[in-house]
Amino acid sequence: MAMPRYRITIEYDGTSFLGWQRQADGASVQGALEEAVRRFTGETVTVHGAGRTDSGVHALGQVAHFDLPKEWEPFRVREAINYHLRPATVAVLECARAPDDFDARRSAVARHYRYRILSRRAPPTLERDHVWWLPIELDADAMHTAAQVLIGHHDFTTFRASQCQAKSPVKTLDRLQVSRYGEEIVIDVSARSFLHNQVRSMVGSLRLVGEGKWDARDLKAALDACDRAACGPVAAARGLYLTRVDYPSWL
Amino acid sequence: MAMPRYRITIEYDGTSFLGWQRQADGASVQGALEEAVRRFTGETVTVHGAGRTDSGVHALGQVAHFDLPKEWEPFRVREAINYHLRPATVAVLECARAPDDFDARRSAVARHYRYRILSRRAPPTLERDHVWWLPIELDADAMHTAAQVLIGHHDFTTFRASQCQAKSPVKTLDRLQVSRYGEEIVIDVSARSFLHNQVRSMVGSLRLVGEGKWDARDLKAALDACDRAACGPVAAARGLYLTRVDYPSWL
Repeated sequence: MAMPRYRITIEYDGTSFLGWQRQADGASVQGALEEAVRRFTGETVTVHGAGRTDSGVHALGQVAHFDLPKEWEPFRVREAINYHLRPATVAVLECARAPDDFDARRSAVARHYRYRILSRRAPPTLERDHVWWLPIELDADAMHTAAQVLIGHHDFTTFRASQCQAKSPVKTLDRLQVSRYGEEIVIDVSARSFLHNQVRSMVGSLRLVGEGKWDARDLKAALDACDRAACGPVAAARGLYLTRVDYPSWL
Repeated sequence: MAMPRYRITIEYDGTSFLGWQRQADGASVQGALEEAVRRFTGETVTVHGAGRTDSGVHALGQVAHFDLPKEWEPFRVREAINYHLRPATVAVLECARAPDDFDARRSAVARHYRYRILSRRAPPTLERDHVWWLPIELDADAMHTAAQVLIGHHDFTTFRASQCQAKSPVKTLDRLQVSRYGEEIVIDVSARSFLHNQVRSMVGSLRLVGEGKWDARDLKAALDACDRAACGPVAAARGLYLTRVDYPSWL
């Protein structure tokens, strides 16, 4: 019989981490979670995440799974991991038993990211590590309109980091919504999966639209070029949040 | 002729400060601003704030004034102070010339504070230094209803820090609104002026109402006792924000 599998929903401030993925030298979110599980159960486990966020990227709803050799109350698992995580800026929001075939990465049917830009002259204070500060005017309506050329099934090579390990650069983008809330521009992005740095690359190019350097045709031309060199300067990690991961209802 | 007076609106993350007020040993918001003005103009000035926030307390709209021996474009003053403030988590949002009789503290006709409580089992991550974490259920409606007994002209001795220097414990509370936004309880408080620690003392007592230990009559009895010992445990500094200060339209 397979070992009991647990699914956790995780929130973290990525500022002080090298990213999700365990590192030989330096703090990672995965490493912090694995160490907390080890302190709690004595077991060495691998915590498998739905998405590998980069250094400085945050999560409001990352999902991960791991197996334990015995049954625990999911509530106790959550409380114990949170206790042993301290003082790391990572918290388990939810924990549940999962079917043996649940896989945080492979079973995901949609990933949702949010990107926050602070558009004002004064630098950020409370949100310093949580937004991309651009001391310029941005036209959010123009950004939203142009963004729609990226929706659908495309070769996203232009918006892909050189170190991306995905087999294919072809992805389907389902949502790219640009909204203004006062001094903040919020960009909500959804797809089944993303290339490495895809969201930050798209946001970096949309910024050029926002400041009037590009229009929708320029963005379309960049996409069609299938050339990394056609991408605008990549947006900062600190503005990016993995907000939610969706799974089939039967998992 | 009097020296030109400037009025600034300031945002800050209070986490790494000992508070607003200049200290002989340690970082203060006032000291950071005065040092930034000195680097910019070469002048030693006093920056007078509307409210002396405690260590760990934040501001979204603190107001202050200071005099400079010569006229500067307010826009340049703001940009230069922000430049020299770096990397402190303080920013000047607005700067304007003010009449000679404008006094950030004495001219204020209303002060507005916001208090944020995170009510959930999992500890905060991104907002760790920006909310008071209470891993308990709180009844926001009961808190709001009870809070209304504090509205009006009262002796607030119960909700006053022992080190408070105000001449009288009598104040008029204009607004105390308790609202729930998901896992967050937000408390908006307004008055012409407050006693030292008054907001955090009132919030600490309202928390007892929220968890069902007190009802509105207990809160009223605490107020009527005019006794510091009748106050609930004072709420943490990290959840408090000075959001706005109002002045007469002619200033």
